[in-house]
This record gives sequence, C-alpha cells and structure tokens, in this order.
Amino acid sequence: MELELVTVGTELLLGFTIDTNGAEIARLMGTIGVRVSRRTAIADRAEDIRSSVGEALSRTRFVITTGGLGPTRDDITKKAVADLFDAPLEFREDIWDALLERYRRLRRVPAESNRTQAEVPRGAEVLPNRWGTAPGIWLEGPAGTVVMLPGVPLEMRMLLQHEVVPRLAGRTAGRVVRSRTLRATGIPESTLADRLGDVESDIAPLTLAYLPGLEGVDMRITAWDLPPDDAERRLDTAAERIRSLAPDVLYGEGEDDLAALVLDAARGRRVRLAVAESCTGGLVGARLTAVPGSSDVFDGGAITYADWAKSEMLGVDAALIAEHGAVSEPVVQSMALGAARRFGALAVAITGIAGPSGGTAEKPVGTVWLATAQGDEVRSSRMIIVGTRNEIRARAAQAALALLWRRLQDVRTAPSP
Amino acid sequence: MELELVTVGTELLLGFTIDTNGAEIARLMGTIGVRVSRRTAIADRAEDIRSSVGEALSRTRFVITTGGLGPTRDDITKKAVADLFDAPLEFREDIWDALLERYRRLRRVPAESNRTQAEVPRGAEVLPNRWGTAPGIWLEGPAGTVVMLPGVPLEMRMLLQHEVVPRLAGRTAGRVVRSRTLRATGIPESTLADRLGDVESDIAPLTLAYLPGLEGVDMRITAWDLPPDDAERRLDTAAERIRSLAPDVLYGEGEDDLAALVLDAARGRRVRLAVAESCTGGLVGARLTAVPGSSDVFDGGAITYADWAKSEMLGVDAALIAEHGAVSEPVVQSMALGAARRFGALAVAITGIAGPSGGTAEKPVGTVWLATAQGDEVRSSRMIIVGTRNEIRARAAQAALALLWRRLQDVRTAPSP
Repeated sequence: MELELVTVGTELLLGFTIDTNGAEIARLMGTIGVRVSRRTAIADRAEDIRSSVGEALSRTRFVITTGGLGPTRDDITKKAVADLFDAPLEFREDIWDALLERYRRLRRVPAESNRTQAEVPRGAEVLPNRWGTAPGIWLEGPAGTVVMLPGVPLEMRMLLQHEVVPRLAGRTAGRVVRSRTLRATGIPESTLADRLGDVESDIAPLTLAYLPGLEGVDMRITAWDLPPDDAERRLDTAAERIRSLAPDVLYGEGEDDLAALVLDAARGRRVRLAVAESCTGGLVGARLTAVPGSSDVFDGGAITYADWAKSEMLGVDAALIAEHGAVSEPVVQSMALGAARRFGALAVAITGIAGPSGGTAEKPVGTVWLATAQGDEVRSSRMIIVGTRNEIRARAAQAALALLWRRLQDVRTAPSP
Repeated sequence: MELELVTVGTELLLGFTIDTNGAEIARLMGTIGVRVSRRTAIADRAEDIRSSVGEALSRTRFVITTGGLGPTRDDITKKAVADLFDAPLEFREDIWDALLERYRRLRRVPAESNRTQAEVPRGAEVLPNRWGTAPGIWLEGPAGTVVMLPGVPLEMRMLLQHEVVPRLAGRTAGRVVRSRTLRATGIPESTLADRLGDVESDIAPLTLAYLPGLEGVDMRITAWDLPPDDAERRLDTAAERIRSLAPDVLYGEGEDDLAALVLDAARGRRVRLAVAESCTGGLVGARLTAVPGSSDVFDGGAITYADWAKSEMLGVDAALIAEHGAVSEPVVQSMALGAARRFGALAVAITGIAGPSGGTAEKPVGTVWLATAQGDEVRSSRMIIVGTRNEIRARAAQAALALLWRRLQDVRTAPSP
C-alpha cells in the first residue's frame, strides 16, 4: 500500500520551521508496510491545498495531511479539503462539548475562534485528540481517503499511533521495513566504526548507519522489504553481533534515555541520587527529573555556578579553589563528596569550561572534570569536549549520567534507605 | 519570482533522514525575494522525477532539485531531467579532468562509476563543485529552468550561495520576502488571537502566522514580494500595531531568548539571580547558564526535589509542607525567600505537579506555583499548564523566567552588589 503526505503551512515553506512530521509519519508507516511515495509541502492557500491533495489522490487514493487545523485564520486545511470533497462543514456539538470540558478542567474559557475546531466535513469520522484541541479527521469519498492531522508534532504523533495506524494495519500486505537502534556513549564515531570493522558485510542485506549526536553515537540497523518475522529474526542476529563487538559502550536501544536507565539502576539497588552542577547549571538534574517517577530515587542537588556557592552549598574549601582553580580534580572531588554527604546519596559533580571564553592553554574550553561519590569513596575523571557551549554542556551532562550508570553497575548490595 | 523545490531520495521519503536542505534553500531564497511555492519529495524513480519536475515547471517555470547526482545506480536525477528536456547526456572531458585532479589530491583513484558524474545534458551550464565530486547543473529549455544540486548539505549550500544566488539575484527585480517575529509568553494562542482581533486586515497585504511552542506563542509577520524599503517600513508599522495590542505579553523579537533577556535586565540593574527548583529539577538553571556570560549575574541555586531537601537546602519549615503540601503558595514563597536569603539574590522558585501521576481533583497535574523573592518581598502566582510532563516542565521554566523578567522591569534602582 502507498500513500502521499501533504504538509500544509507557509511557515514550513519559508524554511523557518523544519518539517519533522513528514519523517516521523514515513518511519511509522514503514513499520506497518505502508510506503510513502511522495511528500508535498504547500502554503496555507486554499487553492494549493485543493490542487495538491487532489493530485495526490489521483495517484495513490490515500493522503495524509498535517497542519492547518488550528483555530486561527490561517488554518484552512479542513475547509479546503471539504470543498474538494463537496462535503459542507458541519458544527458538531459533541466536539464542542469535549472542548468545553477540556477547557473547564484547565479552568479556562475557550475563545470564539475555537468554535471552528468543532466543525467537521459532512460524513467524516472524527479522530479524538486528547493531547490538544484540534481533532483529526478521516474523510472518505469517491476520490479516495484523506486523513487530516494537526501539525503540532506531539498531537500528530499521538493521533497517528492511536488512530491512524490501527485503521491501516489491516490493509497492508506482508513486507515491511524495520529498523533497530543501538545506543553507545563515551566513544567517538570513528573509533566505534574501527571497533566494529567490517560488520556491514556480516549483517548484509541489512544496512548499518552511524548517527552521532549529543548523547553519543546511535547505530541504526535496517531490514528492508522483508516479511515481518524474517526482518525481526535478522535484526536480532545483527544486534547481537554488534553488541558482542562493543559491549562496554552500548547502554541501550531505540529511544532509551540514559537518565531513565540510571534511575532504574539506582532504584533496583536502593541507592539515592544527588547532583552538584557547575558548568551544566542544572542540566543533569533536568535530565533526571524529566523521567516520570524520578522522585523515587532523586532528592535534588546544588547548582553552584559561582565559586563561593561551591563553598556555601557543598562545603568546598575556598583555599582549594584558590589553589587549583574551580575546574580541577580536587574541587570536583570535594563537590561530589559534599553533595554525597549532604544528601546521603550517590552524587555526581561536574565542573568545566563551557566557553566560548574562559579557556587557557592549560585548561582549554571544553575541559570538564567529573566525579561520583558515595560515602567517602570518590572517583573522578577528566574529558576535553569539542564543540559549542551547548554541545559541551549537553555532552558533559550525558557523561555525568554515564559515570553514574557505570558506577551503579558495580554496586552489588547497598544499605536500605 | 516563485520557484518549486523537488527533493530526490528514497532515504528522505523513508523518514530516516530529515530534510534540512529544503528549509535552507527556502530561507536563502526569501532573502533575495524568491519565493518557494511548493516542495515535493520523491523517490529515486525516473518516472516520478520526470512527472514532478514537469508539473512543477508548468506551475512556476523554475525548479531546483536536490539529490540524485552521485555516482551510484540510484542517482538518476540528471538522466531523468535530461529526458524531460529531450537533451541527451554528453560526456565532458573538462569535468572528468577536474574530477581526476581532485582524486589525485586526495590520493585516491576514481571508480568507473564516477564517469557518469562527468555527463551533462546537452546545452546545460555546469556549476563547479569544489566541495565534492558532483557538479551542479543549470538547464534551460522551452519549459523553463531546472537547477540540479547535490543532496549533501554542505555541497548544496555552497553551490547555492556561490553559483545559484548570484545568477538569480539579477532576475528578482528588487522585490523581496522579509519577515519579522514577535515573541509572546504567558498567554494561550487563542486568547492572543482574540486580543489581536482583526489585525490581519489592518496589516494586509502582510500576513500573520501564530506559532505556538514551549516558550510561548511566536507571531511571524511576513511581507511578500515588495521592494526592500517598502517591506521594512510595512513590517515596522505592523509590528508596532501588534505590540500596541498586547504590550504586556510581548517580550522579544526573532530568536530572542527570554533567559538572555533576564540576564541582561539583571546585569543592567545590578541584581544577582538564584533559583530554587522542585518540579523543573534544574531546567531554569540550565536555561540561564546556557547563555554565555551568565556567571556575571547568576550564582546558582538549589534543586529541591524531595520535601526534606526543601527544608535542608532552603530552610522551608517542614510543618508548612505538612500542612499545605509541597505544591502550595506558602511553600513556594518560603522556597523563594530561602533562596533569596541564602544567595543574596533575586530568586525564583517553582514547585508543581509535572505528572503523569500525582494529580488530585484539587491540584490536578499541571498545577504549578511560582514565586519571586528579593530580600523580604515575595510575589507568587499559580498556573495550570496543559500538556505532557516535559511540556509542563518547559512551560513552567519559561513562566519562571517571565516572572523574573517582569519583576526586573519594575526595578528602578537596586543596591550595588
């Protein structure tokens, strides 16, 4: 089965916004064996919407649109497609009631402009949107089917997964594109590629792509155009082969978040966690608390950006800072020990030079000292990270999580809290 | 002047790669007054290339393609467009020599398949590519003009800047697309739209787009196809008109980061800053320290995720938490006052229920209390934020920055540090 995507939004065409919805829809469709054969991005103009959706229907009889379902005047997808199908828009009390109820829960009052969000082309099926105000719309007619989804990425994704995929899964026939991603951290892409050697020919016809990012290097293995069972079996074998070549740097799969794995490991070992952050300024705490349920094991920490704050909040001896500088092994160790003591926790500390200024010949921009401490036992290490200020900070935060994760792998037993 | 983009590449359609070239071309074209009216992504299939380029030419008579110029079998853009123009491919010795020279410099030997990269449709102009092996191609015919660029982002960008823009700049007759973005926060999109009423007709022919995001709602005003001076003048007037309708919620323009504006305001008023974060877990600190030079005014703060940490780090009375709960006005005020005292700073405190669990009828998920304090003076407010855990946290962090920003606007004079 094939379909086309039509992305509506002048913003996307101007290039101010990068379209990530298109890629996401294509990937998800691939997993159920539906192929996206063309993607068209057009402006918020009724004529362009009618013509591009009409042409797409003439080629594939199935079109997904994103964008243009909001309450403002430039949201005209629904009207344009309704016109194309000769299906007048009808105000639907049930949608309006659901919207009113949503606003009541949030203690807000909908604006007059929200009323258009309760209008639906006659004969269309409504795809309820629990994640926002614009429902999706499934419209069938003699020319084919158009599924209209909102452009907000979260809402689009949720409607796609919960409403569109289940309806399409039955219509497809047998061959799929499936991929699996293994996540590595603490190793440069080229070193990882050297370690894996000629693994590409071992896993053929599956392909391997290296995707370096701020959290490390992802490796995506893809099985193309195979029956689902065969694809899964080959992916298992390929993943096993790659894991055996780099077991120490592989921490997860797919969307695995290192912060969540750290929290799970700490929970399993009854260890509580705390942070002491200088150059990352709260990033590690933010990563940990982004995970639901983190309060089980994470108590908090100190953001000690100024030197005096390191002394005030963590008990770092001011003389130590004066002698070695704030970015040094003695200071990071003292920060970690101070946080571990204060919070009765396994603590990680980070101090570094995020730039763009502040570097010296001895301590260039990107120099980061990290330490973990539990009780009196402290371990520290230094990294030199290349990149912009934000890359240095994000990589330092990921490295801090990796240190916690490795240290938690060592812990066999821990005292009850 | 209008043109269309046609992006060739099965990888892009499968969604494993996100197309950033399209956005980049559109932005650059906008600055010289060329409007991208449609973007089409297709697979490496000759028939699809011929039909989509042909249709695009029939609409705009000018098309840029990216991708499909490499040496492998799936690189068929050149052949397909040549067929569409009835222009046979011809082997060009000069291109082949340049390619051999390039390989010699890199101490490599070209493969036999590289010979196809020296083939050019008869009558085409070659756009030399110093950044890779595939030259760009400029082909004109009765149907219009097709410019073929490689898909590798760096090569595409360089050819666009050095070869395409100079050739087009002369044709646009001094008319440009210019836009300006006003940033609002602390107001829902629909309420903002109601406040602005029928401003779209006031500012016509300029257009207005609402772009809601985690930092608030951006409003992009765009002037289409006008002489540069006229465009700027009308943008000024339109921005002024919109600002006058919502002065209290507009904090910046373009890429302005509220954290940077807060730091600037604090710097200008000689106020130092600190944070006390519960549900945001370090996000506000991370936002502030993401800005280079933040150490001028930001000293640090406490991440007090556990209740006891609020007492230990910020001196919040445990009885207050027991009586009112951690997410309450008395507790957020006490957190802010504690941080203000400890850091001798203007402090912002945040405590809330980020979900997905932990909500009650009285305090639903998304309930967030915020406070700012300086000395003994504390101000607090409550929000109920809709969204996922991460949206709630990101919006709460932005709201905390907005409170600091507004409070700093009030400060006329402040004591020297």
